[in-house]
Amino acid sequence: MGEPFLLTPGPLTTAYSVKEAMLRDWGSWDGDFRAMTKSLCDQLVEMAGDTAGDYACVPMQGSGSFSVEAMLGTLVPRDGKVLVLANGAYGLRAAETLRVMGRAFTLINKGDYLPPRGEEVARALDADPAITHVIAIHCETSSGILNPVAEIAAAVLSRGRKLLIDSMSAFGAVELDVRQIPYEAMVSSANKCVEGVPGFGFVIARKSALEAAKGNAHSLSLDVAAQWSAMVKTGQWRFTPPTHVVAAFLEALRLHRLEGGVAGRGARYTRNRDVMVAGMRALGFETLLADRWLSPIIVTFFNPAHPNFVFDRFYELMKARGFIIYPGKLTVVDSFRIGCIGRMDEHVMRRVVAAAAEALADMGVDSAAPPAAAIAERAKLAA
Amino acid sequence: MGEPFLLTPGPLTTAYSVKEAMLRDWGSWDGDFRAMTKSLCDQLVEMAGDTAGDYACVPMQGSGSFSVEAMLGTLVPRDGKVLVLANGAYGLRAAETLRVMGRAFTLINKGDYLPPRGEEVARALDADPAITHVIAIHCETSSGILNPVAEIAAAVLSRGRKLLIDSMSAFGAVELDVRQIPYEAMVSSANKCVEGVPGFGFVIARKSALEAAKGNAHSLSLDVAAQWSAMVKTGQWRFTPPTHVVAAFLEALRLHRLEGGVAGRGARYTRNRDVMVAGMRALGFETLLADRWLSPIIVTFFNPAHPNFVFDRFYELMKARGFIIYPGKLTVVDSFRIGCIGRMDEHVMRRVVAAAAEALADMGVDSAAPPAAAIAERAKLAA
Ligand SMILES: Cc1ncc(COP(=O)(O)O)c(C=O)c1O
Ligand SMILES: Cc1ncc(COP(=O)(O)O)c(C=O)c1O
Repeated sequence: MGEPFLLTPGPLTTAYSVKEAMLRDWGSWDGDFRAMTKSLCDQLVEMAGDTAGDYACVPMQGSGSFSVEAMLGTLVPRDGKVLVLANGAYGLRAAETLRVMGRAFTLINKGDYLPPRGEEVARALDADPAITHVIAIHCETSSGILNPVAEIAAAVLSRGRKLLIDSMSAFGAVELDVRQIPYEAMVSSANKCVEGVPGFGFVIARKSALEAAKGNAHSLSLDVAAQWSAMVKTGQWRFTPPTHVVAAFLEALRLHRLEGGVAGRGARYTRNRDVMVAGMRALGFETLLADRWLSPIIVTFFNPAHPNFVFDRFYELMKARGFIIYPGKLTVVDSFRIGCIGRMDEHVMRRVVAAAAEALADMGVDSAAPPAAAIAERAKLAA
Repeated sequence: MGEPFLLTPGPLTTAYSVKEAMLRDWGSWDGDFRAMTKSLCDQLVEMAGDTAGDYACVPMQGSGSFSVEAMLGTLVPRDGKVLVLANGAYGLRAAETLRVMGRAFTLINKGDYLPPRGEEVARALDADPAITHVIAIHCETSSGILNPVAEIAAAVLSRGRKLLIDSMSAFGAVELDVRQIPYEAMVSSANKCVEGVPGFGFVIARKSALEAAKGNAHSLSLDVAAQWSAMVKTGQWRFTPPTHVVAAFLEALRLHRLEGGVAGRGARYTRNRDVMVAGMRALGFETLLADRWLSPIIVTFFNPAHPNFVFDRFYELMKARGFIIYPGKLTVVDSFRIGCIGRMDEHVMRRVVAAAAEALADMGVDSAAPPAAAIAERAKLAA
């Protein structure tokens, strides 16, 4: 229909059939819709790798941040303490969420993108026995880095603490299996790698944790334990669900399965990224991160040093060619981001690169090389 | 498409063009979507009757309850105290919301449906100068009663207290104009009388109240003041908006305007109710409420006393004929509800009545008269 591709980390470009699934109305009290909710939860628990029946999926109305807050507010006891591992906007938002709720936390802030490593998590936990929970960001979408959750999990679990994961932008495309990483809870949302439309998130949590969390939440709406127990009892969401968004998500899950699940989805995104990054590098653009840290979700590029390069102009030129890109979030140097997720493949990515080449030409930018400050910044994180 | 009509107070039956508006994806950072958000807010402030520029509309992700909680948590100061006027599930939910947040409140609980009256509100306020805010439910959807907000507002405002209104199920079809009832804030949602699809709510509040509320909220996500100031600054929602639901809502607003705004919408719903109630009464059903208390939103009927009447069976028989109805919420006697809102007119309502007649016949119920206990219950509220 000529609408632009969304090269952003959500909302993203979804399949037409996902949107078509919204062309009818459902009564949320009705048995048909209750069956849809059950199917949604069952499929997500399966995607998480839980074969033992230890985990439950609890969908939660609102954006992904609402689910992060619901997970923290419900599962961290009022006298608990959280170690927040931050290397970008979403880690900091988790800390801010705890601050507003008045829950104790301590922050390891690695700045714009440097990854929190297992050893420093281990040291922080050894130094502070009051810490009960650790929250890690799986893909820190603000830079696109894939954080080393396996080594973080090892440090946390060997010290008997509980691991919470914000896998908002990664779940469904990057392996995160409870049999490998037995987290306490994980959060993601409808409109990331499962390629639904935005309107709800979900928490996948140990049932034992949900049982223990009754009455703990700071909020009536954002109470994951209450939402769960109501669902178990009645098959319904406690409050009006976004019925159309749920219907769209079920179609998105069908397509996800058809593509080969997490592995298949991840393979397409990886190919998207590889083709796009290779093409952009060929134009002279440079990525913030060395290859080993790049996620298949979204990639940060430095703005070119060339004086004719103006991001707003670049954005409009890309949009005119059918591609919506994203501003960067680095604080030290200017950058922009291109997402690899959503209903698109390497052919689209080749057109993205071609559009970027044309946009540079239109602006009279004959070199996309970044400024020296960017290169110096990048040197901080070795490959 | 043969899908059933939803005779429920939301999710409800929406126009096909409202759903068609969801057939594309929007980038939430993009200027096109920011313009959609602005238009949505401008139209709702206009619908509220604010011509002086004193009020702002702040949309909030999640269901309507999330917006009620956001309004209370943001606008009631931590040392404030709320008088909650309850005559049904939604009033009690407001009280429960305050309890979970740890805000002081006092409750006038009128039971299943008896309306809180101006004089008792006045007495309660006179007796307790610590009360800063009063929350009233406009249409208490659990019984369908239209509460006397004008007399409540008079009592509250003459005593210098602040009025909060949950007009979830009434706004857009029942007059609620800030020039008549200068409330502090009001809350409603996308999928009630404006006939959008579910996925967000909105708070219409005095700008001065929003300004004074900075830092007051108990929650990062449900902070109306923070959402507002981000929107004023950037034109964006703070966290990912339900883009498709927003697009659907704009089409719903267009149809609302086309129908003649609040007056036109209210006239259709009133006609729906009158035709449906007359038809049901002709079948022998009796309403909980006398006519003067009936809202044009949803009507509670007593279950027939006849031993063959079983609600679950009635529900399935109505569903098989294309109508989803709603269980009742009275605690004292059994009841069910039929909604009058959504994309339907009196012709649909006549078919609803015909379906009810057939369902009674199928069940072998030859009289729809309620039990004596129901009649006794009803006598508590004089016309
Ligand atoms: C890692 C991560 N956490 C949290 C969020 C917040 O989600 P939302 O914007 O839906 O509130 C995002 C959004 O992109 C994210 O990528
Ligand atoms: C008066 C009233 N308040 C609050 C709500 C709660 O809204 P939601 O179910 O969207 O959370 C409703 C829902 O019908 C309502 O009618």
